[in-house]
Amino acid sequence: MTRGRPRDPETDAAILRAAAAVFVERGVEGASIEQIAKRAGVGKVTVYRRWAAKEELIAQAVEFLLADQVSKPPAEVVARSSPYELVENALESVAETAASPEFRALAARVLGSAVSHPELMAVYWEHYVRPRRELTHALLRRAQEEGTVAADADLDVLTDMIAGAVTYRALQPDPPGTDGMRTYLRTLFRQAGLLP
Amino acid sequence: MTRGRPRDPETDAAILRAAAAVFVERGVEGASIEQIAKRAGVGKVTVYRRWAAKEELIAQAVEFLLADQVSKPPAEVVARSSPYELVENALESVAETAASPEFRALAARVLGSAVSHPELMAVYWEHYVRPRRELTHALLRRAQEEGTVAADADLDVLTDMIAGAVTYRALQPDPPGTDGMRTYLRTLFRQAGLLP
Repeated sequence: MTRGRPRDPETDAAILRAAAAVFVERGVEGASIEQIAKRAGVGKVTVYRRWAAKEELIAQAVEFLLADQVSKPPAEVVARSSPYELVENALESVAETAASPEFRALAARVLGSAVSHPELMAVYWEHYVRPRRELTHALLRRAQEEGTVAADADLDVLTDMIAGAVTYRALQPDPPGTDGMRTYLRTLFRQAGLLP
Repeated sequence: MTRGRPRDPETDAAILRAAAAVFVERGVEGASIEQIAKRAGVGKVTVYRRWAAKEELIAQAVEFLLADQVSKPPAEVVARSSPYELVENALESVAETAASPEFRALAARVLGSAVSHPELMAVYWEHYVRPRRELTHALLRRAQEEGTVAADADLDVLTDMIAGAVTYRALQPDPPGTDGMRTYLRTLFRQAGLLP
């Protein structure tokens, strides 16, 4: 491959997938371009031609990994459903995600790098956390209008309480499986005023 | 030093302090016995004579770091104060801790190793999280008796919501300083029924 030749998107995707996997297994500090190249089945030079530093590559890999993750219900479903119905419909998928080893491993690594590599948290925040917060916030506002969430509740803090509890529970010793997480989420959403 | 000679507690303490510092800076995967020994000003052999593996040393270092951290108010103060008063009295110290770079860095690293090195989370849980959870739980129970927390609230989940929100907020991009954290905590405790 010579300079200026168009990049092969499949090679890029293989490198990004490998970088995400190595990051989740070993953290930023434990990952190296060598390991990532080996995992992707390419030479080190192929990686270095595309990314100058492993931190940059890992941030883009996290973004790539999360690209298709947000599944928002269609606007007409949101419009004709109550907050309770929307939460009930989302419960199974949230429980499966929050109990999955992949979510736990990625969330742990991203939180783990929050202080040493804030650029990774920024990417995770923008592509994963923020769209979910906006959905939660909109739900809480409607629940507040319907009176199941207190009129004077601070919705940003309540969003932190919900998201914080799920993440925190998932990373505690002895984390629940999908069934346990479903039960946990029911209690949590009830407490927040999002389930009866 | 020959085998059987008593261990020097000051050397042990220096190694544990160095191990905690290297762990917080670089994570488990980025830390090595060599770096820890260098930081402590001792030879590698001195470390290896005491700890067989860096994971074991780091877990003990986290325990050592947290040993004197729990400041529980005296029982007679707890007995004669309302939950509101106890929370108000603790607010400044909780805000300072939650906004401190040291807390953020340690919490990030421990959460970051929750999946890859659950033994570190177990130590952190036992020595740091559990005593705080017990205090929070006891406060919530009294607040429930006094009617400021709903009678049907699940106190374990509510404890997760409080602790999860603080940890989560501290690790978000653009974390608050002490003043911002104090304001945040007031809103959080009010939301939970622990402040008026």
